[in-house]
Amino acid sequence: MVASAFLPELWTEILIPVCAVVGIVFSLFQWFIVSRVRVSADQGASSSSGGANNGKNGYGDYLIEEEEGVNDQSVVAKCAEIQTAISEGATSFLFTEYRYVGVFMVIFAAIIFVFLGSVEGFSTENKPCTYDDTKTCKPALATAAFSTIAFILGAVTSVLSGFLGMKIATYANARTTLEARKGVGKAFIVAFRSGAVMGFLLAASGLLVLYITINVFKIYYGEDWEGLFEAITGYGLGGSSMALFGRVGGGIYTKAADVGADLVGKIERNIPEDDPRNPAVIADNVGDNVGDIAGMGSDLFGSYAEASCAALVVASISSFGINHDFTAMCYPLLISSMGILVCLITTLFATDFFEIKAVKEIEPALKNQLIISTVIMTVGIAIVSYVGLPSSFTIFNFGAQKVVKNWQLFLCVCVGLWAGLIIGFVTEYYTSNAYSPVQDVADSCRTGAATNVIFGLALGYKSVIIPIFAIAISIFVSFSFAAMYGVAVAALGMLSTIATGLAIDAYGPISDNAGGIAEMAGMSHRIRERTDALDAAGNTTAAIGKGFAIGSAALVSLALFGAFVSRAGVHTVDVLTPKVIIGLLVGAMLPYWFSAMTMKSVGSAALKMVEEVRRQFNTIPGLMEGTAKPDYATCVKISTDASIKEMIPPGCLVMLTPLIVGFFFGVETLSGVLAGSLVSGVQIAISASNTGGAWDNAKKYIEAGVSEHAKSLGPKGSEPHKAAVIGDTIGDPLKDTSGPSLNILIKLMAVESLVFAPFFATHGGILFKYL
Amino acid sequence: MVASAFLPELWTEILIPVCAVVGIVFSLFQWFIVSRVRVSADQGASSSSGGANNGKNGYGDYLIEEEEGVNDQSVVAKCAEIQTAISEGATSFLFTEYRYVGVFMVIFAAIIFVFLGSVEGFSTENKPCTYDDTKTCKPALATAAFSTIAFILGAVTSVLSGFLGMKIATYANARTTLEARKGVGKAFIVAFRSGAVMGFLLAASGLLVLYITINVFKIYYGEDWEGLFEAITGYGLGGSSMALFGRVGGGIYTKAADVGADLVGKIERNIPEDDPRNPAVIADNVGDNVGDIAGMGSDLFGSYAEASCAALVVASISSFGINHDFTAMCYPLLISSMGILVCLITTLFATDFFEIKAVKEIEPALKNQLIISTVIMTVGIAIVSYVGLPSSFTIFNFGAQKVVKNWQLFLCVCVGLWAGLIIGFVTEYYTSNAYSPVQDVADSCRTGAATNVIFGLALGYKSVIIPIFAIAISIFVSFSFAAMYGVAVAALGMLSTIATGLAIDAYGPISDNAGGIAEMAGMSHRIRERTDALDAAGNTTAAIGKGFAIGSAALVSLALFGAFVSRAGVHTVDVLTPKVIIGLLVGAMLPYWFSAMTMKSVGSAALKMVEEVRRQFNTIPGLMEGTAKPDYATCVKISTDASIKEMIPPGCLVMLTPLIVGFFFGVETLSGVLAGSLVSGVQIAISASNTGGAWDNAKKYIEAGVSEHAKSLGPKGSEPHKAAVIGDTIGDPLKDTSGPSLNILIKLMAVESLVFAPFFATHGGILFKYL
Repeated sequence: MVASAFLPELWTEILIPVCAVVGIVFSLFQWFIVSRVRVSADQGASSSSGGANNGKNGYGDYLIEEEEGVNDQSVVAKCAEIQTAISEGATSFLFTEYRYVGVFMVIFAAIIFVFLGSVEGFSTENKPCTYDDTKTCKPALATAAFSTIAFILGAVTSVLSGFLGMKIATYANARTTLEARKGVGKAFIVAFRSGAVMGFLLAASGLLVLYITINVFKIYYGEDWEGLFEAITGYGLGGSSMALFGRVGGGIYTKAADVGADLVGKIERNIPEDDPRNPAVIADNVGDNVGDIAGMGSDLFGSYAEASCAALVVASISSFGINHDFTAMCYPLLISSMGILVCLITTLFATDFFEIKAVKEIEPALKNQLIISTVIMTVGIAIVSYVGLPSSFTIFNFGAQKVVKNWQLFLCVCVGLWAGLIIGFVTEYYTSNAYSPVQDVADSCRTGAATNVIFGLALGYKSVIIPIFAIAISIFVSFSFAAMYGVAVAALGMLSTIATGLAIDAYGPISDNAGGIAEMAGMSHRIRERTDALDAAGNTTAAIGKGFAIGSAALVSLALFGAFVSRAGVHTVDVLTPKVIIGLLVGAMLPYWFSAMTMKSVGSAALKMVEEVRRQFNTIPGLMEGTAKPDYATCVKISTDASIKEMIPPGCLVMLTPLIVGFFFGVETLSGVLAGSLVSGVQIAISASNTGGAWDNAKKYIEAGVSEHAKSLGPKGSEPHKAAVIGDTIGDPLKDTSGPSLNILIKLMAVESLVFAPFFATHGGILFKYL
Repeated sequence: MVASAFLPELWTEILIPVCAVVGIVFSLFQWFIVSRVRVSADQGASSSSGGANNGKNGYGDYLIEEEEGVNDQSVVAKCAEIQTAISEGATSFLFTEYRYVGVFMVIFAAIIFVFLGSVEGFSTENKPCTYDDTKTCKPALATAAFSTIAFILGAVTSVLSGFLGMKIATYANARTTLEARKGVGKAFIVAFRSGAVMGFLLAASGLLVLYITINVFKIYYGEDWEGLFEAITGYGLGGSSMALFGRVGGGIYTKAADVGADLVGKIERNIPEDDPRNPAVIADNVGDNVGDIAGMGSDLFGSYAEASCAALVVASISSFGINHDFTAMCYPLLISSMGILVCLITTLFATDFFEIKAVKEIEPALKNQLIISTVIMTVGIAIVSYVGLPSSFTIFNFGAQKVVKNWQLFLCVCVGLWAGLIIGFVTEYYTSNAYSPVQDVADSCRTGAATNVIFGLALGYKSVIIPIFAIAISIFVSFSFAAMYGVAVAALGMLSTIATGLAIDAYGPISDNAGGIAEMAGMSHRIRERTDALDAAGNTTAAIGKGFAIGSAALVSLALFGAFVSRAGVHTVDVLTPKVIIGLLVGAMLPYWFSAMTMKSVGSAALKMVEEVRRQFNTIPGLMEGTAKPDYATCVKISTDASIKEMIPPGCLVMLTPLIVGFFFGVETLSGVLAGSLVSGVQIAISASNTGGAWDNAKKYIEAGVSEHAKSLGPKGSEPHKAAVIGDTIGDPLKDTSGPSLNILIKLMAVESLVFAPFFATHGGILFKYL
């Protein structure tokens, strides 16, 4: 019965870091290619005086299609200048954010240590293990210390992922703009490669740090795998708590700037998007990088880390952990390693095997990335499941052990992987203006903003249906086959192609910024058209990425919930008990409370921005005429200050709820809260993202005016277009702040409960104890 | 241990119908007083020619404050004409609706009979009872037949409640307008009395029919109380399924007309609300009566019937039922009887003990009604609990019997009653423009419609927090004391003051209509100001009523859920099983699906209305100038057709989901679906209602311009006011269609599951049986 995995332990120990290193090297290679496009004011200046071919930003080899007169070095200098401003704004914001987050991290690390240490009264004695009492386990104090270390490691890795992502994106945006002069294909490749840099770096470094942490902790823990993997859960908590601040802070930043810029610029002053005369334009572009890039990077890193931790902690009390089968134990990491290789091959399809020649090829190329990676990964999972798992093993199932076959686990991972693809395509259907839902929303703009909003909200609600069924089926299949371990590996399956997913996701804001830079640098209409085409494709893929992030968050948080329940020693969470049902009800309310906070924050911050932008237009003479420069820095500062200030209350809500509920009401009520927030949060998250995405693309549909129908609604400035702009503005905080932050709410509360599970099980529920 | 209630059975048999009859008599008496205000074109014509004092519509005794020239009989004739048009439109719509609903009723009655009859294969043999095998119970076929009869009775009573409510409201609206000429106090009394007619008629007839049904069924069932009260649950299902069509159909009708009228009238043509030149104005006023009056009446009747059924069915398998203690068994009915007496006294405070003299006294008078009824009812519950219950008894608690004291049950009812009051006041705080939340929303209109919508949505989300805590505390207290019976009586506690609640609720649309009639009849600005003041107070109380309806729906559906689980023989609903968790997830999605349908329906119907109104303005010469009459009938027809057509898909979703889930997936998954839709639906329902109410009042706040702040945003037609109108229009379907319909979604699915519980327990879950 107790068979070992086919792959020897030594091979596992070698293969995982090798794959991670391959991913990092590939990422650096992509970065190197991108860096060959030179953006340098100095370089530009010297070349325009010297005229040396190699000084011409490396585009001597290409036919530059740009018109005469615009295609001079002053454009390059201007691009470089704008890029520097964006990069500096983003860096300065992230450093401010990290300073505050650093304080939080230290405090929370102390809480983890004290709370977990108190479980056995800070005793330093070893004790028999809980699930295998023939073995000796380390004291709770050790788990407290190592959980704290893992937490810090997770947090630092998350911060680094976000920061590097932002650096790469701000490095790539102007390069994409400049390449757009050579054609849409060249620009696409630069933007996509830059996205890939981020994707691979994040996926590989996340895996590598986790792998090294496990191996280092193992030196101390030795035989005690229960304690080892319990401590490792801190890694997930660290990653996810940083993601919370990244998503919320970045989300408020980007939307305060965006809404503020749009309300005055587009609606009141009637100047185009990204017009350099708009004082909030730099803040808006900075926002794309800190919100959509750094925030999303941290978010997906968090999902990845949490899914791995959930799988590992359940595995550690299953036969893998009890029999010390290291290869099988590392099955989640092997899946991720395989994912890196699969994504590497997939990337080559976009960058090397095929070439983009026309605008209409961009979106299919991006979508093909998802399909190709999913198909190849299916084979990859089969291989990993065959070599990395014994043919039969047992999985801990809330107090019992359940026998599972390796092909069943293969199916669990696959169902997650394919559900991700389905969710992605449904999201696309509801948010792309190529299909009828968005066109209907655009059409409703005929009767004004009110019907646009009504139709948009209805669209968002409707778009929830199929993803929820996809998630429900994944849960049913994976749960039935392999209990909560199955759910965890299904989540990992969905996240296994994360490198490709992130590459596509990051591509969007990079293209968006590229367009902004083209506009600000005063480049010609043709260039702007190309970057707009890149951006439009990016919008759809961004929506797909969000759907994907939410779907995986749902699976991850259920897996974490299961792991929490297992560690807390709860065997049933019965809805027919008052403790659970009130938890369920209050838990389902939390996403609303959280959304109220984040949306109000965006609203208030945007109002401040509006006042400042209006003030500048009114007091700076010559600003509207373009003869005077606006004061970009003040707008950047407003966004920074507002987002830092406003991210604290929602952050506290999420971080404190599990602690308060667990401590005062105990694990049953906390289980209810987690289940309630999961089932309610995932709906709002999906509907908010899709509603926002649909409004954005309905507006773009009217602006582009490619079909007869679209033309009848336009052009820019028509009444239907104005109604569409209002919808787009409402959608901004929904799709980029409150929606995506909800992913983190549901995951983070679950992983926090998991980390503190021993504490709650020992000291929790004091209110009921004394009543 | 087995003590009987203090009150002898005979007294119970007498007291309940006496209270019901007192309620009906009081209702008729109120109606008689209202009828003394005469609205008759004939009468008016004869008196204007004859000039007899008693012909002057009975207002010879009062000082008519109306200006000369306007105060002639032609105004009365005009009011009578408009009233007739509204009444005819409403009657014609309701008859059309009932025709369709009648078909449904017949089909569904057949389904009930066949499905429940099949439980024992249509056997006619008696069998030993499930919970007390010393007794003999009737066959399932009998339960099938009697459930079907109860279903039809519930449906008919619900339809009658809605229809009579509508008749009274359309009878009272013009009377309120005419009384407004004598002062705001007189008008208030007419509107309030008319509301009371509906409130008492509904509460008393609901009680009486239920009481008679129980006694008639008892003749057949004899000893078998299990079967008796199981059959009685059909009454709740009948009431609630009619309410579904009433709320959804009426909601779509009213909002299609309202949104359509506003979009063209207010926004495009810049004519005031209720202007007789607007072709959709009659449809709009009809809508108030079929949506807010008939729909809400059916809804609250449904809640009342369901709460009673849930309590009775649990009691029948507790010691009350097993010991055949009829008084204790009728405790839910005794609470309702006491409620009628308490509300009767409360009404006198508004109509006789105090007199309204100024506008600012209206809102406090209405709010005092709630407080007074709650305070007196607390004493009433204490009396009923003391005389109607044994000092100690046992309650069925999912497989076990739990000992409960009578004071504990008193607390259960009280916690529900007071939670209702708290929810009411929180709702008021978030939707009345006397407080900062709505003022903030109004202020956000400065920067346009987009910020208005963002702030409004955030307000709605935030307004969920306290009501959810209030519901959670009620559930916790009542569940802990007396399991699901406690929850059911808590719901009954909240609904015990239903007569007063309905009176206040119905007062709103009557005042709204009165204002509309004043405008259409061309009455002076002073009259319009008075009706506006009545209407503004009515808006707030309407929001309170909605909060109340949702809160009670949450408790009711939990109680029904508990009763379903008890009848289906399920002992635990464990979230940690795949069947339950997927049910939970899909259940939490259903309110979104349902809202998507209803909102889209309103949007589409409104678009059709807009086209028709535009067509009339464009093609009827002299319409804008007021020289030609619009074609009201076509607009009425559009609303009728659209709402009938559009109510079918959401109706099917709600009615079929429990059948499909129960039949294919079984009772565990269905339990998950019910719990999921409950915890998710209640949040959307509250936030949708409050968001809509806040937008409505933010607009009114700007229009009224009573404070410096409000003046800075106005006047009518200013940019902030236009933004506020957009918000108001978006809020219409949220607060009057999708929000209130969600109450019914969560209740109806639960009561349907309860009725079909024996069928699902026997034949359900075929998918898992064969997999």
